[in-house]
Amino acid sequence: MTSVDPDDTGLLAPGWAGSPAASATGDAAFLRALLDAEVALTRAQWSLGLAPAEAATAVTDAADTHPFDVRSLAERARAGGNPVIPLVADLTKAVGDPYGPYVHRGATSQDIMDTATMLVAARTLDLVLGDLGRTERALSRLAAEHRDTALPGRTLTQHAVPTTFGLKAAGWRALVLDARDRVTAVRDALPAQLGGAAGTLAAFGAYGASDPIELPAAYADELGLRTPELPWHTLRTPVADLAGCLALTAGALGKVAVDVLTLSRTEIAEVAEGSGGGSSAMPHKSNPVRSTLIASAARRAPQLAATLYGSLAAEDERPAGAWHAEWEPLRELLRLVGGAARDAVELAEGLRVRPDVMRAHLDLTQGLIVSERLSAELAPVLGRVRAKELLTRLASKGRPLAEAPELADIDLDPAHYTGSAGALTDRALERR
Amino acid sequence: MTSVDPDDTGLLAPGWAGSPAASATGDAAFLRALLDAEVALTRAQWSLGLAPAEAATAVTDAADTHPFDVRSLAERARAGGNPVIPLVADLTKAVGDPYGPYVHRGATSQDIMDTATMLVAARTLDLVLGDLGRTERALSRLAAEHRDTALPGRTLTQHAVPTTFGLKAAGWRALVLDARDRVTAVRDALPAQLGGAAGTLAAFGAYGASDPIELPAAYADELGLRTPELPWHTLRTPVADLAGCLALTAGALGKVAVDVLTLSRTEIAEVAEGSGGGSSAMPHKSNPVRSTLIASAARRAPQLAATLYGSLAAEDERPAGAWHAEWEPLRELLRLVGGAARDAVELAEGLRVRPDVMRAHLDLTQGLIVSERLSAELAPVLGRVRAKELLTRLASKGRPLAEAPELADIDLDPAHYTGSAGALTDRALERR
Amino acid sequence: MTSVDPDDTGLLAPGWAGSPAASATGDAAFLRALLDAEVALTRAQWSLGLAPAEAATAVTDAADTHPFDVRSLAERARAGGNPVIPLVADLTKAVGDPYGPYVHRGATSQDIMDTATMLVAARTLDLVLGDLGRTERALSRLAAEHRDTALPGRTLTQHAVPTTFGLKAAGWRALVLDARDRVTAVRDALPAQLGGAAGTLAAFGAYGASDPIELPAAYADELGLRTPELPWHTLRTPVADLAGCLALTAGALGKVAVDVLTLSRTEIAEVAEGSGGGSSAMPHKSNPVRSTLIASAARRAPQLAATLYGSLAAEDERPAGAWHAEWEPLRELLRLVGGAARDAVELAEGLRVRPDVMRAHLDLTQGLIVSERLSAELAPVLGRVRAKELLTRLASKGRPLAEAPELADIDLDPAHYTGSAGALTDRALERR
Amino acid sequence: MTSVDPDDTGLLAPGWAGSPAASATGDAAFLRALLDAEVALTRAQWSLGLAPAEAATAVTDAADTHPFDVRSLAERARAGGNPVIPLVADLTKAVGDPYGPYVHRGATSQDIMDTATMLVAARTLDLVLGDLGRTERALSRLAAEHRDTALPGRTLTQHAVPTTFGLKAAGWRALVLDARDRVTAVRDALPAQLGGAAGTLAAFGAYGASDPIELPAAYADELGLRTPELPWHTLRTPVADLAGCLALTAGALGKVAVDVLTLSRTEIAEVAEGSGGGSSAMPHKSNPVRSTLIASAARRAPQLAATLYGSLAAEDERPAGAWHAEWEPLRELLRLVGGAARDAVELAEGLRVRPDVMRAHLDLTQGLIVSERLSAELAPVLGRVRAKELLTRLASKGRPLAEAPELADIDLDPAHYTGSAGALTDRALERR
Repeated sequence: MTSVDPDDTGLLAPGWAGSPAASATGDAAFLRALLDAEVALTRAQWSLGLAPAEAATAVTDAADTHPFDVRSLAERARAGGNPVIPLVADLTKAVGDPYGPYVHRGATSQDIMDTATMLVAARTLDLVLGDLGRTERALSRLAAEHRDTALPGRTLTQHAVPTTFGLKAAGWRALVLDARDRVTAVRDALPAQLGGAAGTLAAFGAYGASDPIELPAAYADELGLRTPELPWHTLRTPVADLAGCLALTAGALGKVAVDVLTLSRTEIAEVAEGSGGGSSAMPHKSNPVRSTLIASAARRAPQLAATLYGSLAAEDERPAGAWHAEWEPLRELLRLVGGAARDAVELAEGLRVRPDVMRAHLDLTQGLIVSERLSAELAPVLGRVRAKELLTRLASKGRPLAEAPELADIDLDPAHYTGSAGALTDRALERR
Repeated sequence: MTSVDPDDTGLLAPGWAGSPAASATGDAAFLRALLDAEVALTRAQWSLGLAPAEAATAVTDAADTHPFDVRSLAERARAGGNPVIPLVADLTKAVGDPYGPYVHRGATSQDIMDTATMLVAARTLDLVLGDLGRTERALSRLAAEHRDTALPGRTLTQHAVPTTFGLKAAGWRALVLDARDRVTAVRDALPAQLGGAAGTLAAFGAYGASDPIELPAAYADELGLRTPELPWHTLRTPVADLAGCLALTAGALGKVAVDVLTLSRTEIAEVAEGSGGGSSAMPHKSNPVRSTLIASAARRAPQLAATLYGSLAAEDERPAGAWHAEWEPLRELLRLVGGAARDAVELAEGLRVRPDVMRAHLDLTQGLIVSERLSAELAPVLGRVRAKELLTRLASKGRPLAEAPELADIDLDPAHYTGSAGALTDRALERR
Repeated sequence: MTSVDPDDTGLLAPGWAGSPAASATGDAAFLRALLDAEVALTRAQWSLGLAPAEAATAVTDAADTHPFDVRSLAERARAGGNPVIPLVADLTKAVGDPYGPYVHRGATSQDIMDTATMLVAARTLDLVLGDLGRTERALSRLAAEHRDTALPGRTLTQHAVPTTFGLKAAGWRALVLDARDRVTAVRDALPAQLGGAAGTLAAFGAYGASDPIELPAAYADELGLRTPELPWHTLRTPVADLAGCLALTAGALGKVAVDVLTLSRTEIAEVAEGSGGGSSAMPHKSNPVRSTLIASAARRAPQLAATLYGSLAAEDERPAGAWHAEWEPLRELLRLVGGAARDAVELAEGLRVRPDVMRAHLDLTQGLIVSERLSAELAPVLGRVRAKELLTRLASKGRPLAEAPELADIDLDPAHYTGSAGALTDRALERR
Repeated sequence: MTSVDPDDTGLLAPGWAGSPAASATGDAAFLRALLDAEVALTRAQWSLGLAPAEAATAVTDAADTHPFDVRSLAERARAGGNPVIPLVADLTKAVGDPYGPYVHRGATSQDIMDTATMLVAARTLDLVLGDLGRTERALSRLAAEHRDTALPGRTLTQHAVPTTFGLKAAGWRALVLDARDRVTAVRDALPAQLGGAAGTLAAFGAYGASDPIELPAAYADELGLRTPELPWHTLRTPVADLAGCLALTAGALGKVAVDVLTLSRTEIAEVAEGSGGGSSAMPHKSNPVRSTLIASAARRAPQLAATLYGSLAAEDERPAGAWHAEWEPLRELLRLVGGAARDAVELAEGLRVRPDVMRAHLDLTQGLIVSERLSAELAPVLGRVRAKELLTRLASKGRPLAEAPELADIDLDPAHYTGSAGALTDRALERR
């Protein structure tokens, strides 16, 4: 009999199941982050003399040792619409007398929820950055190794002119570095959230703070997050920035994936994933599974980001829906990108490149792949119109251009027509 | 200490956590549906004489009694990119000799995955339809009860002319019925999936079927799903139809929610949710939580549907990414709508309506809410231009129009200017 | 010098520029539809005895003959937020005394705007349906002609087992028919809009109608649209239904396009568009432009539909933003789908199919494309495990399976392993 | 008779029709930018000695003086799928002999199209930045002026605790500054595009350049754009960055709009737009039209951005669909944000604030709006539980808390419970 457990473990998510990002974003990780935020709040109050040391210790201990029941929290979250309300009840009870009243003192649910989300984001982005780094290094090696490996450049699915695999890999790497730079900037700016019921910090004053504006800084320090300029309950730039850098990262990796998928096709086979996925009934199949799963993530990320951007228009001091609509999409984006980054490492590190197949494909169009060069070189001699006529006539014969006596003096080797691909690759690889 | 369990229980999803739809869409429910599909496949082969009765029994028994490990399946799904591959391995092993080879015989992973998804969809839509029915009946009662309860009609946030709460509730109900009709049509058309590796049913012939085209019908009958005209591995109309009816349902309920949110505002307070969500520090607050969570679902559903519509453009006989990108968004849509439908029942059944507040608001503009009527009635007497001048002059005085001697003979009672609201309500309520 | 005209003619839209759908959805077409709605309103009032025949004639004449200035209307629309306000002013003036006051009498801007949108939608969908019909017939011919043309079935980019081009074309046709059926149903249900300021029809009563509820039916009859059950100012099912059927159509055509793009690749070249797009510098290039533009439309349609679904959650009797957010996305969806349907006709009617190339590709994997059949046929003889071992061993040799003496008695011709592809094609083609 | 002109002038777009952004993004502006790119290409070749000065002059003159026909270009774009192909033909012809061959020499259509898009983006973003600056300054004045104007803080639609209008305006301004910063960074990084057919610059070498890698820098200098590190035909970070900053800007302005819409409601009326939109039949109506149109833009922008993010996954050296899918959505985003920024200036500069109404609303809950303060102050005296009981009991009486003798010594003035709102406002206004 199968389990009747209603929980999700990632059965529908081979793209991220079992990944470090999965653990970093699961309910347990969120619960831990919520507790971290509550602990930091009490500790920050203690650090400013607003709570006794014993309260800070008691809350810390309870958060670390009490066996909170995630499912119960999830179900009780329904009444008030967020999980902080039941969590505060449980944590207060776990702390007990006399320090229970210091739990969550002066804060609003959103302070804790947003802060926890930033913690989860920071922790997941660190994993992503590690994997982007590994991917970038593997692509760097591929680009250097294949600096001069020529293959057909393809536009609108058709052979255009030659390019190099080095330039292609250098381009992939440039995208990964773009993603890294944007993720790094966003990660380093993730702010703590603290404002109280309407973002005025008023309750902290009511509880005795002479200058409540100091509290957010102390709280952020406890958490390793940035101090916000203002409470940002409905100023959602941090969430939008996450949406943007994650959608960009998914798309950057998606570009690598769709290229690998194309180049892996049975008829093309210029590259292959290191360890393709198999099929029980078809022993010959070696599916590009890593690319498939990355491509799948890249299809989903933009719409998840759209939901987050849509929540910028959040009315009042806390909106009725826009905020709640952020939670799951942001987590999903973090997971998808985390999983895709993991897959990208394997893809890049394991990619098998077949220069001989690439070379052979350069001849598929019987020399026409260098027709641009011929146009350029013949035009000054024959005039533009006659040069084009000649080429069109030769092309229509369906025979290799190399056999045409009119072109005897021209270098028709496609591998010699890669332009500045090498120099561009070198320059791109200088970027750190 | 908190659990280190990486599973999700809905901590970020107060909109659906603990709901019947949550159970109907969780990993365990999907596993059950995957097993149902495998069982149906073997049974269908038996029913056509392609497998011995003992094989059907053995597979059925193993599916019912073997303790499959969802998390292990999820993690092993990564290698091949879908959970059916490890599940078939486990199920085959559980069946053991000599009937193990009958497991999944002739099928492809997508046959099982798509069929399971349709089963999960059918089961969840049945829950949704039940809740839409309850919601519709509650709205019907509200509309009938408040057929003649006048309140300000509002356009672009401003009072326009009067309407009735009955007409408003009848409109909500009409949307719910629209959703019900579309969900019903889609639910009744959900097809089983069976085509084998490339949708030709070839393997079933290789395994001895003289007319493999009979098999999908037998398989669909086992499952209570429709027989597909063609294998639809990359003909994704069923998924797109689900996307459409679910996005419409989310939006229909979202309309009710945003109206309730508006009418619940502290300054308006014409309605209130039956049991609002509380706040620990602010005992007076009674938040419209059901509406908030429904509104949140309505913000997310369109983008999830967009991802599914985007997967229609699926290349080849099985795409590298488009198919995989459907699984989680479709489940999420089912859950969100399932949770929103549950919340809608409570919202509609518990809604408190305050006719006296509505009536009082009709006077907020000191009679100007019926200025349209005055324009219409004065124009034939004074001419359009002079009528408008008079109204503009009176309006600028900032005093009740009823005090203007020029208007002494005109019925200025806003509650008398509700037009055909009653008749429209009656007609709308005739729809079943 | 280039024109400084700020207008758009479709310079960025090769997918629909110059198409019938472009003309049917341009500003002039919308203006015509707005005028049609105003004319119908006055005529409907005349038909019910609420306006003199001369008024109906005067409004009709003015709408037909007055030179309205679209740009001026567009710019003056800014003040009130919609183009109906300045249009009513201009039309009233054009009608002049004494019938000017009958223009727009009792209506609200949204009555006219929504009705005009439905007219534009109906007219554009008729064009779409015509093109879907032509596309379907061309695909029908392709499916019949290539009923038995075998080619590699491809899954996750790799050769799987053989299929037929007939089955592939029959699948494309099934999607086109799905689109046709959904578009037809939506088109036939498009309703007129008439409710007055807050949807109560009150003003019509103020202007003398004894039973204003009759007016919407008369108005709808004038326009050839359906009579709505209720004014649907914020019950946006008709718009959501349009979103759904248009997104489905874009995706259905998108599926055809992505398949053609794949099969057109230089290395695959199993099909080619009838008249590919050229390149000035590369005379050999023949780009699959129709497919490219259809694929582009399929990428955009889902997000446009998402915006429309998002507008279902429209507060009050007229929302402040949700309604306005529908106008351009709905027009864009109509245009994109109209253009894609035009391109699909050319694509389907002109597609060149190369059975010989397909046949050659069946041998690319040296017989492994029928390994599924071998597994099935060898397993009863050798046992499942030994059969698999044998195949894996033979596959690893890198030589044609046909040369293996162990397989001498088995039919290894891939063209003989297409299962029920022919029968499925026949059945699918019976659908009308 | 109405014009049969198929062009668009913005009839459906009151949010941007007639705005500077409309002119900056229309077809004529794009045509001008395409010509600018072609001119820059020839001039750059001249600057590097690859073309004679007369060629540069001839191309410049033709671009400036030839009457290009936008509609004809739009319709001829259909054949090859982009407007550069017919434009090059027309420009070459306009230049005539002997310098015609220097037009577009060595470039690919995408070089010109992408560069033109960056030019249009740069020009439009400059307009946006100007309007964001004016908006920011107006909000700054509002924040300073109303630093201490108390009003109800609202969460989930209900009064929570007091805040100040100054803090609200300071928050709006912070968002506008966030948008400004992101737009500025993206605008300053917009790159020219130059790579030739497959991004290798090979053709420039074929035409005689000894070091083609110098050409992109010379070309970018001509245009005032950044030199790209690599040709970015399928490395679409610049487009994704535009998507992100524009979606953020739309959302930032959308936040201001939804707040104004809420506070403008007839029942709330704490603010009003400077010049509301009117209604012909209802002279009292003053609709918040600027906010409505901004809110409408904010609803559409995220999905447009999603389409752009989705195009990151672009296969090969030029994709068959992903690139084409960018053109219209990017233009639409630029326009929507340009129009919204214009509306935001008027909104912010004209906003009327009613401190007396705000003050009156603070008393709507009869003192309960400061219940948080009472909880905090009573708890140390009475204990948390008894304090809460007391408040709940007093609240249930439905009478002003100020009348309760138990609270006689406590400051119940809501205007005195605004916490650090003033200090936060001051600090936020220091940001430049």
